[in-house]
Amino acid sequence: MILTPLLFAFAAQAPAAAATTAPAPSEIVAAAPAAAWKDIPADTLMLIDLADGRRITIQLAPQFAPVHIANMKALAAARFWDNSSIYRVQDNYVTQWGDATEKKPLPAGIVANPPAEYVRPVAGLAIRPLGYPDAYARQTGHADGWPVASDGTSAWLPHCYAMVGVGRNLAPDTGTGAELYTVIGHAPRHLERNIALVGRIIDGIEAMSALPRGTGPLGFYEKAEQRVPIRTMRIAAELPVRDRPAWQYLDSASPAFAAYTEARANRRDPFFNLPAGGADICNVPVPIRRKPAAAD
Amino acid sequence: MILTPLLFAFAAQAPAAAATTAPAPSEIVAAAPAAAWKDIPADTLMLIDLADGRRITIQLAPQFAPVHIANMKALAAARFWDNSSIYRVQDNYVTQWGDATEKKPLPAGIVANPPAEYVRPVAGLAIRPLGYPDAYARQTGHADGWPVASDGTSAWLPHCYAMVGVGRNLAPDTGTGAELYTVIGHAPRHLERNIALVGRIIDGIEAMSALPRGTGPLGFYEKAEQRVPIRTMRIAAELPVRDRPAWQYLDSASPAFAAYTEARANRRDPFFNLPAGGADICNVPVPIRRKPAAAD
Repeated sequence: MILTPLLFAFAAQAPAAAATTAPAPSEIVAAAPAAAWKDIPADTLMLIDLADGRRITIQLAPQFAPVHIANMKALAAARFWDNSSIYRVQDNYVTQWGDATEKKPLPAGIVANPPAEYVRPVAGLAIRPLGYPDAYARQTGHADGWPVASDGTSAWLPHCYAMVGVGRNLAPDTGTGAELYTVIGHAPRHLERNIALVGRIIDGIEAMSALPRGTGPLGFYEKAEQRVPIRTMRIAAELPVRDRPAWQYLDSASPAFAAYTEARANRRDPFFNLPAGGADICNVPVPIRRKPAAAD
Repeated sequence: MILTPLLFAFAAQAPAAAATTAPAPSEIVAAAPAAAWKDIPADTLMLIDLADGRRITIQLAPQFAPVHIANMKALAAARFWDNSSIYRVQDNYVTQWGDATEKKPLPAGIVANPPAEYVRPVAGLAIRPLGYPDAYARQTGHADGWPVASDGTSAWLPHCYAMVGVGRNLAPDTGTGAELYTVIGHAPRHLERNIALVGRIIDGIEAMSALPRGTGPLGFYEKAEQRVPIRTMRIAAELPVRDRPAWQYLDSASPAFAAYTEARANRRDPFFNLPAGGADICNVPVPIRRKPAAAD
């Protein structure tokens, strides 16, 4: 799980007796009641199984990019990505995957030129404001389990670490969803409102972020044998019920979420001498967990 | 070189004929005149040579943490780090190195308890303001070739990607400089004013960021054989003149730097439909280059 903030960030060893202070964000999340957690539907979970056996789990955000995501579901159903690869890794930027040859025909039913789903109306989103200044948006906050940026009229997903976007060529191209990338460095937020984001990696990001960087232009692997083979990509709802992974996110309307965001902006756990008094939206990731067996 | 922004970020192939638009930040940097570049002194370059032959180059910032950096120079001179290792890699956070055993005695002359060099007076720094809102500081900008955050009285280095900091245990410990880390994910800016930053990696970050993530708590490697051996760490000024690498940074007082920051905040090169109208300090890295041979 990638989204758990950690206590004693730089201590090689935890102290024998920590001073009594406020709980760390991770402690607040661990203590959140079952009612504060919401299930992630199986039809919004995409599973990338690499040839080496590792799995990467993506949560999709159809409320932000429905046409691109419908394309992705159709591509998965058509097995478009089976035997595809990760073919680009650019340091402090992105890892990208799909059909490295760019020659594989798209299956029938794919919208070749989706609308530019770069923003959506702010109406219909119950945004919990984060409340701190941001260089890229008038407002940031959380809604429906997602980080959100807004100019007051439109809303969009910020380009935070582990977010998943749709590769495209120059406008008017908007990308089909066949070529995808994830952020593996500092949030490249200048891309916002210029690219369709479709979700985020909630588990297994290490299989994307710890890869050798590509030495070609833009981090493309120069040799075909450097590519990382993808065995399959599936929507979890395609699997037999017993094989579907179950994940939950912390409801941004819950008191636990409010306490978590306050603690992320004002760390008072023992390692910290001085709380920051603020946080940027990409430093307040939505807590994610596997659904406990007892919660079934 | 890690700090060059790139054009056509997601295009697998550059278009045959790009539209004529404003230059990309990388093009502005490439066109900057020789007078806009300043040499990085050899006594502020620290070279980490890994056992596998790769080199990581750090630029030190003695104007921010002089006592910690004096310690680091003494540790390098005493060969403290020779045959040490990288022993912690935590995804979207930090890579850390030094003496994994934490038992090696410090050489004579090391200040065991340096002052908390977490901030310095803003006086004496000619800060070029970036001018966009920031969640962590009243002002951000650049000075002396460094990103800077300030509350109007004090100034500090922001915790951006590739910045190098001093590991410490709980306060009042401030760390000696023997255990170091670098940021390999989204900027953990809540650490600012809580830790001494001493510089940044200007070359070879891939040898830190693309490592397998540690599976122990906080990303520590669980087995000694997982550690990445460091052969030597040296200050470049210790080397014979002909072996010293020569690096330069773009002067933040130069017109080229002003044009670069404006373009980072307002991308108008062909890939972009909509300029952001702002940038966070960690998305405006100071351009760095090897000193051209002709400039000698």
